[in-house]
Parts: sequence; structure tokens; C-alpha cells
Amino acid sequence: MPPSNTLALAQKVMQRIEQLGRITEQTGCLTRTFLSSAMRKANNQVAEWMRGLNMTVREDNMGNIIGRHASDNPNARVLLLGSHLDTVRNAGKFDGALGVIIALACLERLAQSAKCLPFHVDVAGFSDEEGVRYGVPYLGSRVLAGIFRKDQLSLLDANSVSLADAIRSFGGDPDALNADRYPGDSLVAYCEIHIEQGPVLEAHNLAVGVVNAIAGQSRIMVDFIGRAGHAGTSPMDLRQDALCGAAEFILQAESYARQQQGLVATVGTANVLPGTSNVIPGQASLTLDVRHADDGARQKACRYLQEKATAISRQRSLQVVWRTVDESCSVRCSESLIPLLSRACENNSIPYLLLPSGAGHDAVVMSAIADIAMLFIRNRDGISHHPDESVAVEDIAVAISVINEFIGLLAQKEAANRRE
Amino acid sequence: MPPSNTLALAQKVMQRIEQLGRITEQTGCLTRTFLSSAMRKANNQVAEWMRGLNMTVREDNMGNIIGRHASDNPNARVLLLGSHLDTVRNAGKFDGALGVIIALACLERLAQSAKCLPFHVDVAGFSDEEGVRYGVPYLGSRVLAGIFRKDQLSLLDANSVSLADAIRSFGGDPDALNADRYPGDSLVAYCEIHIEQGPVLEAHNLAVGVVNAIAGQSRIMVDFIGRAGHAGTSPMDLRQDALCGAAEFILQAESYARQQQGLVATVGTANVLPGTSNVIPGQASLTLDVRHADDGARQKACRYLQEKATAISRQRSLQVVWRTVDESCSVRCSESLIPLLSRACENNSIPYLLLPSGAGHDAVVMSAIADIAMLFIRNRDGISHHPDESVAVEDIAVAISVINEFIGLLAQKEAANRRE
Repeated sequence: MPPSNTLALAQKVMQRIEQLGRITEQTGCLTRTFLSSAMRKANNQVAEWMRGLNMTVREDNMGNIIGRHASDNPNARVLLLGSHLDTVRNAGKFDGALGVIIALACLERLAQSAKCLPFHVDVAGFSDEEGVRYGVPYLGSRVLAGIFRKDQLSLLDANSVSLADAIRSFGGDPDALNADRYPGDSLVAYCEIHIEQGPVLEAHNLAVGVVNAIAGQSRIMVDFIGRAGHAGTSPMDLRQDALCGAAEFILQAESYARQQQGLVATVGTANVLPGTSNVIPGQASLTLDVRHADDGARQKACRYLQEKATAISRQRSLQVVWRTVDESCSVRCSESLIPLLSRACENNSIPYLLLPSGAGHDAVVMSAIADIAMLFIRNRDGISHHPDESVAVEDIAVAISVINEFIGLLAQKEAANRRE
Repeated sequence: MPPSNTLALAQKVMQRIEQLGRITEQTGCLTRTFLSSAMRKANNQVAEWMRGLNMTVREDNMGNIIGRHASDNPNARVLLLGSHLDTVRNAGKFDGALGVIIALACLERLAQSAKCLPFHVDVAGFSDEEGVRYGVPYLGSRVLAGIFRKDQLSLLDANSVSLADAIRSFGGDPDALNADRYPGDSLVAYCEIHIEQGPVLEAHNLAVGVVNAIAGQSRIMVDFIGRAGHAGTSPMDLRQDALCGAAEFILQAESYARQQQGLVATVGTANVLPGTSNVIPGQASLTLDVRHADDGARQKACRYLQEKATAISRQRSLQVVWRTVDESCSVRCSESLIPLLSRACENNSIPYLLLPSGAGHDAVVMSAIADIAMLFIRNRDGISHHPDESVAVEDIAVAISVINEFIGLLAQKEAANRRE
């Protein structure tokens, strides 16, 4: 059990989660998209909480809200804690927001001792991770990492408002985005606290997990093409049923992924043509999503499944079209920070799991300029991106304890570094 | 080979198919729906061809066009040859029309000898079989069979024109439909010539087939319900993937139908929810179409597949919802007419196949008041309801020979009946 003052802090976190969860642009549910009026209110609220901790607050040109708890040493580097404040449509309250609010709770617990840290502690609430408004994720962290692509300023939202204009309306200057990046080597680390968005910690009965990598991903379109025909007049042995071929492939993908440690493969959609109850399917188009923390294992899986699709099609006199539409490599969490975060758990006698993240996070972007670490918090039934998203207050207390311990361990390490 | 005058008649049939195929309500393709202006032109054209054979022609209140070649015996019963003149949208030229035009060719070949037949020969061009305009098939033949439901007169088409008003606009009287039915026992037989709409005759290299039954059909909705989840963060062993369960069912339905003689089972549509590439399917809804000429075999198949769906769901922790949305019993062709039509083939040394029809036909309706027989004609690649529908002129000649022989055999039988 965490000490009672930590539990009280966790309860305060939960109150703030509720409070922030009411700041929405859509009545009846939580939707808070990039640079919306709801985000203005959310940023103002988070800024107020930051100032309550005597942090200096700035909002950058991309609408990221950043508070600093400065070290006594003005030349210190920066530990950046962060997550995002935007949401998907009809979202849960915890995804993103929880990471920002817990970071503030940690600073509250550190209180005056934070001044003695050998680094500044920045807490960032990123303005865009979900990519709902412009179809491009990570707009917020990309600016802090200095990898924002300026050609995206001309992107239009559903109301034909360009990204540049949205930035101006929010009070930013689209021409000054370059200035918002953290200078090279200024970050000691980037550490993100986030709900797991999956059922693994719950299945292991664990409050937290230390992320070792963010999985790489392949998104593939697989079209099986056969021959449409009358469902009543075509005997079974004269058919070229595209959906039957697709069904065989779906089961092959499932059984292969089940056999490979750490691999997930998902067919999320099936589009059948002509798609009439009394017509044999002439085409069945699937999407295939393959992820693994090890890029080699993922690529091997994709090759294997492509061969399977070809073999199934050959046997059934179908054609198959295999198109890789998107591919991202896995990102390893820092080899020096994983042991530190693990030790932070152990020092508090908190059991934990080392696990990969199957979902993308701002940490992927921040890895461009910093060592990254991530702490996952158990969420009920693995439900995320849904109003039923739920986290236990006790687990939040555990996370606060772990992150505070982590900050202490990191401070020792940074101090030792400086002495060298 | 058929005699050359029959081949010449078949060529004339083909010219008329082309001519009728140009009568459409939609430029660029063939669409001729119930009581449309195109049907007015088609009926007028067919009536002209009928009068050219000295037939007396009437159009009934449902827009069926009926020609009679009267027997010398005014008290004779009636042999009804028929098929439909309406089409689906973007149709082929042969479906329906071919049966009417071949019937006329048969009368042309009989010429004066038809007068000596012990029955009148009626040729009917039904105004609606496809059900495109009012969503209800067989409107034409239902009236002739006396099983039209008067409450359907209030049905509305896409332009909100009621069936009653459509009948009036075409020149009919919706209140007089009862008078259009053939009186009980007045029909010697109903015989329909139709393209197979399937690939069986082609696979057997046969021009024609004798239909022994029109298959019964079950239409079933099968919903597999699992649990949606993040495609990246849910390990394979913690999933309840509805689409994987559906895929297993699709393959079970296929392999079972392959093992059962004469059974066809088709999953024609698959609707996946939420249907996003990066979300594990929480629901997969399938349509299942099961047909067999034997109702017992069809019902056994449905029971077996429902048990399979339940077993798959239990094993995968899914739920399954099984709804039979439509069911029709099989209709046997007449046990006395099948041997007659078969002998008509044999007497002409024409090889043939006895086969069931997997598709519905006007013959199903006419079986309410008459013994029915059907002759199928091979069509290329089994393609129907499509502009590529194609029939060889030689096969049409074969059909003319068979039907003429059939009429002769039926005449012998009717004459014998009358002598008894």
C-alpha cells in the first residue's frame, strides 16, 4: 500500500480527471480536439494547476502547455514528463490527461525538495496526439522534438480551416514553431505515464508496467479476388468464392500470431463485393494490422502471411493483391532508463511487468531528441478510447510512488554524471 | 444437329432477342421493369409477333401479354408456355425473354399442325418476375395463378406510385385481377424454358437440362458478437475476435455443403463492427443462404450449421445470434412431365441432365394451379443478371426441337386421356 499522503494525492488526481473530463466540445460525451475551444479551457485549467505548484508556465506556438519547476542550478538540463490533453471523439477521461495530472501530483509530493534536483522538471500537456482534427497524429510533440513538417501547415480540417490559421486563432505563430523545440541534448530524459489501453496488466493482476519498447506496425490491404455467381445455381465445386479464401486467411493470421511470442495480427475490416446475400462473393478485401516490438519478427510475420495468402489463393483459383499501406519501426525505450524505472518499482516493493506498448505514444516522437521511458497503468478490461475507460485510484497512487522514486534515482544519476 | 429449318428458327430467335434487348428504360444498358414504358413497347412487340402467328392476343390487368393458338376443339384445355419479359437493372438479354421467344418459335415450327392439337397453346410473357419495381417478385404469374394478394395493391414504388395506380396507367383494372386467373384444372401443363443461370450444363458440355425441382431456400442472419479492443495492445490469447469466429463458420459452411450432394451454402455478406483496421472486431454479421431441392436435406443443413455456429462461439467465448429471415420450400416438377420432357430429349438424341434449379422461377407460382415442367438452356460461364449473359444459337435450336417434341408427346397423352 502506498503511504496515505500518496493516496490522498491520488484522490486529488482522480478529482482533476473528473474536472478535465467535463471540458469537452461535444455535449453528452468527452471530445477535446486539437486547438478547440475545449482545449483552450483545458490548457487554462492545467496552467492554473501548474501555477498552484509555483511552476512557470508557457504555452508554445503549437498549443502545448508547459510548466517548469526550476532547479536551483540555472544551467541544469531538463527532465520532461508529459502526455497529451487532446482526446478522440467520445473518449474516456484517462487516456492522455492522466499522464499530465499524475506528473503534477508527483511535483506536489516532491514539493520544496524539487528545487534541489540537479535538473529542471518540465511537465508538458501536448496539444495533439490523437490526430483527430488534421488526420496527422503527434502534432504537439513533433514541435517540441523539432521534427514537425512545415508543409503540414496547409492541411485543412473538416471546416476547411488550415493548420496555420488554427494555430493563429489559438494565439500561436506558425512561423515560430522552430523556436519551440528543446535544444539538442537539453533533455535528461522524457518520461511518459499512460494507461495501458490493453488487458495485460489486469490479466497479471499488476498496477503498473515498465514499457520496454513501442511496437513497430505494418498496415496491409489484402484483396482476394474470385468470381461472383448466383448463390442458388452455382454448385460448390464450381465456385471461386473470395470470402471463403479470405476466411481461411483470417484464421491463418490468427493461428500464426498465437504461436509467435509478442506478435499481434488483426484483421479489423472485411469488405465483400458485391455484398448481397444471394450472390457468391467475387471479392473480399481485408485490412491486416501486424505489430511486434522486434522489427525483424514483424517483417518475418508479414512475409509468412503474404506467402499464406498466395498459397490459399492458388489452391482456390483466386487472385490476391497484397499492399503494404503503412509501416513504422519499433522504438526501444532507453536501456539506461528501463532499469531505473524498474528499480523505482522494486524500491517501493511494487511488482511490475516489463512489456511492450502495442499502441503509439508521444514517446515515439520524443525519442528523436531524448532517452525515453514509459510507465503503464492498469485500466479496467483493457478498454480505451471509450467512455467506459476506468483506472483505480490505488493504481494511480502506485504510479505516483514509482515516478517519485524514479525522479530520485534519476537525480542521483544526473548528479553523479555532473561530478564525473 | 437440329434440322436446318430449326437452326434458321433459332437464328430468328436470336434476332428477336437482340431486338427485345434494345427495348430499355435506361440508355446504355438493358433495364425493363414492371409496367414501364419499355414494357409497353416490349408487350406491343411480342403481341405483333404473336399476331404474325395468327394467335389471338390479350393483355391482362397485370400487364401480362398472352397469345393463344387455339385448338380446333373449343372445349380443349390449355398448354401454357411462358416466362417473363421484365428484367433486373443492367440485365442480360436472355433471362426471361428467351423463354417467351422460343415458345413462339416452337409455334412457328408447328405451324398449321398446331390446330390439330388436343389443347390450346397459350404463350405468356409475364410482366413481373424480378420484383425490381415493387420489391415483390412474380406479380405477373401470381395473377394468372390466382394467388395475387390484393393488399399489395397499395405497395409504392421508388416514385411513390402505388401498384394500383401503375396498373391503371398501363391500362389495367386493379379490381378485375381476379378474372385473369386460369380456371381450376383448365391447364394441361405449364412449361417454362429458361437459361440455367449457372455453370452446370456448361461443365457437363450439355445444351439443355430437364429441371426436376426448384430448390427450397433458407436465408439466415448470423451475428457473432465478441469484444472490440485495441489491435496493438490486446495479446492474441486475451481476445474475443468476432471476425475470427465468423471466418471459422464460413469455412464450416463451405466444407459441409461440399460434402452434401445438391446442397449449396453461401455467405454473401460480412459486416464487421466497428470495422476499423486497428480495432479487433467486436461483431461480425453474416448472411447465410442455404438451398437444396430436398427440404429435409436443407433443414438438416441449417440445424447442423446452427450447431456449428454455437460450438464455435462457445469455444471462442463469443455469443451468436441466429435468425432465419426467410424460408421457402422446394417445388417438385411434375412426376408425369419430367419423363415426357426427358423422352423429348432422347427422341431427338439430345443428351441432357436432370438437375434442380437453385433460382426461383414463375414455374414455382404456376405450380399452384398446374403441373409444371422446366427446360434449362446452357448459358456461357453461368453468368446471368449481367450484360455478359450469353447463349449459343445452336443450343436454342436444340431447345426448340425438344419443346416441339414435348408438345407432340403431351398431345398424345392428352388425346389418350380424353379417350379414356
